[in-house]
Amino acid sequence: MIMIVIKIGGSEGTDYQQICADIAAHIKAGQQIIVVHGASHETNQLSLALNHPPEFLTSVSGHESRRTDRKTLEIFIMAVAGKINTLIVETLQQQGINAFGLTGCDGRLLMGERKKAIQAMIDGKRRIIRDDYTGKVENVNTKLLQILCDAGYTPVIAPIALSNEYEAINVDGDRAAAKIAGALQAQELIIFTNVPGLLKDVSQPDSLIMHIPKTNIERYMDIARGRMKKKILGASEAILEGVACVRLTSGKVQTPLSNALAGNCTVIQ
Amino acid sequence: MIMIVIKIGGSEGTDYQQICADIAAHIKAGQQIIVVHGASHETNQLSLALNHPPEFLTSVSGHESRRTDRKTLEIFIMAVAGKINTLIVETLQQQGINAFGLTGCDGRLLMGERKKAIQAMIDGKRRIIRDDYTGKVENVNTKLLQILCDAGYTPVIAPIALSNEYEAINVDGDRAAAKIAGALQAQELIIFTNVPGLLKDVSQPDSLIMHIPKTNIERYMDIARGRMKKKILGASEAILEGVACVRLTSGKVQTPLSNALAGNCTVIQ
Repeated sequence: MIMIVIKIGGSEGTDYQQICADIAAHIKAGQQIIVVHGASHETNQLSLALNHPPEFLTSVSGHESRRTDRKTLEIFIMAVAGKINTLIVETLQQQGINAFGLTGCDGRLLMGERKKAIQAMIDGKRRIIRDDYTGKVENVNTKLLQILCDAGYTPVIAPIALSNEYEAINVDGDRAAAKIAGALQAQELIIFTNVPGLLKDVSQPDSLIMHIPKTNIERYMDIARGRMKKKILGASEAILEGVACVRLTSGKVQTPLSNALAGNCTVIQ
Repeated sequence: MIMIVIKIGGSEGTDYQQICADIAAHIKAGQQIIVVHGASHETNQLSLALNHPPEFLTSVSGHESRRTDRKTLEIFIMAVAGKINTLIVETLQQQGINAFGLTGCDGRLLMGERKKAIQAMIDGKRRIIRDDYTGKVENVNTKLLQILCDAGYTPVIAPIALSNEYEAINVDGDRAAAKIAGALQAQELIIFTNVPGLLKDVSQPDSLIMHIPKTNIERYMDIARGRMKKKILGASEAILEGVACVRLTSGKVQTPLSNALAGNCTVIQ
């Protein structure tokens, strides 16, 4: 049985119905799938509606992340663990898949260190932020995932982890999926995005890079722009931990999983 | 090992820190506890903030329930499965308990029938409502709860069920807790509220009814007012399914669980 970890993005226009239908078809064909998902658009919308507009920080190394004070953390939790997680579980259940939603806090599934201080560039100036609830997954409770899979459930994971002080923290979904794929020694990590993969030139959809040799990922980091940087970072972390193949692919085609497995995407192996 | 199902209310001023500390102490002392919780206050607040004010329906038999159109369902899911469930899990984890949050949709934990048509009294007139996402738990996946308990996790359950058509539905938390306690043949069902128990006269806190014989619960339904009606209904359903003892008790004292187990509440057995 092939183990596949899939990251469903949370950007505007994500068609959960279409993605879940394709995932369900593959599970019914005998593949073991674990789903990780985001909720960026939903979190932005909810933040605006609750008069706590989203803010983003750019780290000194150029990675962008959501500024997450405690109020933002609670908004993020409502969007990602409440609405999107339950929606994906409900949609998969309607497709005949016994989905099981959880966050990294449940049963200490994902543990990691909360960033005590974030150095961010704001208006060109270096600033230190100390009350942020973000961090990085360091440990995955694979035994728990194994129990759920053995019992016939399909795990659907929201990217919230528990810090070493047992606080809920916002972790990057792509990198959490990479960590989970690595811990499970999955054969495949498939990251859905709203572009066909890594593009040489973001303005040219036909400039897709179809193959990245796994010994040479870092070189491609400079080509990546915006959110794609973290996806390349996640891909390199997964490969480093032993995942055989990572695919960066469009979630917006009709059968996105089949499309990715057919190689119509950026394949890193 | 005694199995206790606890329902934590979701009304304004619920002190989750205090309740969780007492629950953690009892788990450490060897009791098996399953937590079910509400989020009524949080749902009201979020509904107001999102310009979709809460509405309540009174059934012909006098029970009150939240009017739950699809938008309200999503708000309820964000409040109960997102914010409150994660908050309780986080708080228990900080107390050293390996809590595990889930909704009734996860792994088909709670299944039931969605109400196709609700007869409600509105302004003294009978009205039929057909687009409500509410229902009643009919089946509990006890095998799933057993797997979690055997693995050392403390389940924390948000009262959302899957309908027979696999839609997420809002179910009453007290009655869901009763159904879970019955399915597990728990020794104790403890329902926390913001009053000391069933009062003969709601304006007199010292009019607490300390004992209700299990053969005679229905007679007390007429004494109950507002939300207490559903708690008495839940209690009678739990007793009918074989739960040895149900306690209706205050969640607002310092050690609410110890207080209830000491008998400072309404005991139905």
